[in-house]
Amino acid sequence: MPYRAPVSDFLFLFDRVVGLDRVAAEPRFAEATPETVEAILTEAGKLCEEVVAPTRRDGDLHPARLENGVVRTSPGFAEAFRAMAEGGWIAVSADPDYGGMGLPMALTTAVNDMLSGANLALQLNPLLTQGQIEALEHHASDALKQLYLPRLVSGEWTATMNLTEPQAGSDVGALRTRAEPDGQGTYRITGQKIYITWGDHDLTDNICHLVLARLPGAPEGTRGISLFMVPKFLPDADGTPGQRNGVRTVSLEHKLGIHGSPTAVLDYDGATGWLVGAENGGMKAMFTMMNNARLGVGAQGVGIAEAAYQAALAYALDRKQGAAPIPDGTGTIVDHADVRRMLASMKADIFAARAIALSCATALDMARATGQAEWQARAALLTPIAKAFGTEVGMAVADMGVQIHGGMGYVEETGAAQYLRDVRITAIYEGTNGIQAMDLVSRKMADGGEAAVALLDEVEAFAEQARAQVPDLAAPVWNAAETLREAVEWLVGQGDLSARFAGSAPFLRAFARVLGAHHHLQAAIADPGGARARLARFYITRLLPEHAGLLAHARSGAEDLYAITPDDLAA
Amino acid sequence: MPYRAPVSDFLFLFDRVVGLDRVAAEPRFAEATPETVEAILTEAGKLCEEVVAPTRRDGDLHPARLENGVVRTSPGFAEAFRAMAEGGWIAVSADPDYGGMGLPMALTTAVNDMLSGANLALQLNPLLTQGQIEALEHHASDALKQLYLPRLVSGEWTATMNLTEPQAGSDVGALRTRAEPDGQGTYRITGQKIYITWGDHDLTDNICHLVLARLPGAPEGTRGISLFMVPKFLPDADGTPGQRNGVRTVSLEHKLGIHGSPTAVLDYDGATGWLVGAENGGMKAMFTMMNNARLGVGAQGVGIAEAAYQAALAYALDRKQGAAPIPDGTGTIVDHADVRRMLASMKADIFAARAIALSCATALDMARATGQAEWQARAALLTPIAKAFGTEVGMAVADMGVQIHGGMGYVEETGAAQYLRDVRITAIYEGTNGIQAMDLVSRKMADGGEAAVALLDEVEAFAEQARAQVPDLAAPVWNAAETLREAVEWLVGQGDLSARFAGSAPFLRAFARVLGAHHHLQAAIADPGGARARLARFYITRLLPEHAGLLAHARSGAEDLYAITPDDLAA
Repeated sequence: MPYRAPVSDFLFLFDRVVGLDRVAAEPRFAEATPETVEAILTEAGKLCEEVVAPTRRDGDLHPARLENGVVRTSPGFAEAFRAMAEGGWIAVSADPDYGGMGLPMALTTAVNDMLSGANLALQLNPLLTQGQIEALEHHASDALKQLYLPRLVSGEWTATMNLTEPQAGSDVGALRTRAEPDGQGTYRITGQKIYITWGDHDLTDNICHLVLARLPGAPEGTRGISLFMVPKFLPDADGTPGQRNGVRTVSLEHKLGIHGSPTAVLDYDGATGWLVGAENGGMKAMFTMMNNARLGVGAQGVGIAEAAYQAALAYALDRKQGAAPIPDGTGTIVDHADVRRMLASMKADIFAARAIALSCATALDMARATGQAEWQARAALLTPIAKAFGTEVGMAVADMGVQIHGGMGYVEETGAAQYLRDVRITAIYEGTNGIQAMDLVSRKMADGGEAAVALLDEVEAFAEQARAQVPDLAAPVWNAAETLREAVEWLVGQGDLSARFAGSAPFLRAFARVLGAHHHLQAAIADPGGARARLARFYITRLLPEHAGLLAHARSGAEDLYAITPDDLAA
Repeated sequence: MPYRAPVSDFLFLFDRVVGLDRVAAEPRFAEATPETVEAILTEAGKLCEEVVAPTRRDGDLHPARLENGVVRTSPGFAEAFRAMAEGGWIAVSADPDYGGMGLPMALTTAVNDMLSGANLALQLNPLLTQGQIEALEHHASDALKQLYLPRLVSGEWTATMNLTEPQAGSDVGALRTRAEPDGQGTYRITGQKIYITWGDHDLTDNICHLVLARLPGAPEGTRGISLFMVPKFLPDADGTPGQRNGVRTVSLEHKLGIHGSPTAVLDYDGATGWLVGAENGGMKAMFTMMNNARLGVGAQGVGIAEAAYQAALAYALDRKQGAAPIPDGTGTIVDHADVRRMLASMKADIFAARAIALSCATALDMARATGQAEWQARAALLTPIAKAFGTEVGMAVADMGVQIHGGMGYVEETGAAQYLRDVRITAIYEGTNGIQAMDLVSRKMADGGEAAVALLDEVEAFAEQARAQVPDLAAPVWNAAETLREAVEWLVGQGDLSARFAGSAPFLRAFARVLGAHHHLQAAIADPGGARARLARFYITRLLPEHAGLLAHARSGAEDLYAITPDDLAA
């Protein structure tokens, strides 16, 4: 089943749902005219369809491998990567001073969504580069910027992010990698890092590792972490990669999915590194990179969902089975109520998750363009929701895709199972979905719920307005937003964070359900009597009601949960 | 992580939840004394822990393979299979006249649950044999019974079930395999069958294929299907396998999971077959086998869930990460609220799904022992729920198991991912979960909802009784049962089956949620102030509320769903 880039969906979302026109009205993004946006999406979509997607299966069948210390990538990946770089798709939002297009994050998010649907394992590579570009733009010295940014933006070099160590995963503060000043303005980095995505490969002449490490005498925990640029090859005066740096690829992981993405264990043994940002200020710079990546991972979930949905729909429209359940049907299994339910759920959830991701990106763009704290807070609030819900939808849709294929879905040849295996990592990396939920109910509500309530005000105001046109859809959306508002008020009233954390995952999902309903309602108003209105009705009638049970869970507190002791669990 | 057989859970469920004493009070099952039951479970559990579970990973890493027309099974499988056979664990419920133990299905279900948790790929083999034994007991001639049953019961031979053809999956009636009488009382079978589980292997001297095929001039569809016994090797007069029959293994599938289970394409080319049951009566015999297998597959889901839960709990209790979130904690990630939430959800859902499966088995036993139509109807009602919910829980728990492992869960070496890959097939085979849901709202409610309402009467009566002891748990269970009853009444009032089918999957899940709550309430009453009561509170407070949203979905009807056209879906 060939991948088809959902360009018209993006255009509709930009135009009628997330309001890209507001972004384009800002001088900073004046180039994001409707014509440019359509041209960009069309061109990127074509690349995804024709060049990137055809490599997906080869990446799965022929994983990247480590041979005599050299990582060999999957067949076709080098050519597809080159085409992505030449098209400028690695750094759509990067600073034009360094060769970027300077376009809104909303566009980057759409392009990432398509690239992920085409080949998640390969798209991970530019996603990490995007994060590093942003970290360097914000925190690096001019010299480092001049040297690295143009080469990262062009795809001449690629980037990695080195946080995790065997004893330090979600708890980054426990890391032990050391950085010793060498008296020449640089540092010697020593330690082992694991789970380094695209940590080594043969696609480019150099690989730029951003590494978290501790300076001598640094404080314990996250306050004692500094960030270093450690290139695989040391660039000479004019930037040509020369001598090999002291970093060695120990092994690659054998993973459930994204086989085409080499996940490396890297050993740093006195490698030369350059400080990025302030001493002991590494977490701040890393968070810039991570927040960017979190939205990017949400878009990955949506992109895989899109591809898995397309494959399942094509299969359902082709597969004849059983007596026709409805008159004037297609004669295929899409006529069966339960199959159609699954397909409609998939499409409705993809729309919801994509709208949330693009809303988050738009808020980021507005924050950058205006510097307003309200937009900053909106983007910060939406980031964990976009990440966790986008990846949950990715997993659920890929799972239903397997189910629609029946026995064929369990056989690897159809490719339905690959989506499920590939997407599974997105709920884990860049902060597990549990960490996203904790972030939402703690840091993102440290404002007393102000940002959340401001968003719900908009949701309710829109529902009020929509009541005249579609009363039976507007009312449940308004009611759900109100129930969510009460839950927000309950949450921020809990002084003990445990009480928030105990229901944070269901709370995040309920929040996403309500936002999804809001965006579906926008679509219904924009397309009265049309396909989008019919899908909105499906979502609001059948999927939205889930929020009530989730919020009951979210408001249960921690006491009964912690009453279940480790001994109880092991009994 | 070594597998630990949950023997005490089974004993509690038999004793305090599903009422095995009532079964044992029937003369047919007089041997199922508490002492025998405990001895059987302990012995089977020991085999699972010590002999079967250690082969699980080898089956994954070294799949069965076809070499020069011969299927070679995974390392260690032959020895483990032999131990299962010698222990008598293949046919716990089979007729003692043929060497079976004649014990209740409740015990078979518990043993199957443990064997599945130990090694699903291998356990599939005896599960199919159990189904065939039952089909032969009910439908085969005495001569076939004498020849085949003792050898199947002892594990000397194994069995397969041949329904699916490339164009005939869920729609069995579309099959084309032909059976021609050869004038000697036997038939020549010709056609291709796919997805034949354990369709070929090297574990035993013979393999007994039950094959669905059409006689010349047979009616179209399911009414023209007959069932045939087609052994791989033709037995001579005293039952010794002799000449090779005309069945050839074309290929084995490359699957997402259960790599140790060879899934074959079999080509029948004039193979000799013996009629089982009446001409054109094949579906009836096949349904005997399938209903048995459906409950068995539900137990597989529970078994995998148990194993995945144990592995995740062990990991969580070992993994140190982050600052202690609670005073006097363990210092491991089990102290984190979201991790504990996941573990409690897993354990609570395993209990619910296991209780439903064992209730179904107990109802089957009562039906067999008493011949009463009420028990028959109860078993028929619970079968699709046990199958679909058991496998959904299997998938959800295996998925949370991966999540709790974090990055380690995505790396194949930990084994967490194998559970997820293995269990995924259980929602597809033996009738997809969508088919189970359709069965529940149509055939199983063809009685006007009588069996469902009778069960809900019991649930409400128990909640009434429990009100004095645990009012805050009993009230929500009673209310949920009442909401479900209203949904049952709404469903049976829909003359158009499409209206029922459109919400059948969420309806089935809601039904399971309510039954799960009922069984948790029973546990809370049986263990006041204990661990089971604390888990019941978690389930009833946090997981049960899901039923309301599901029932809203279930009662939405078909109109809005079918309004979403194939063109809408492809737009």
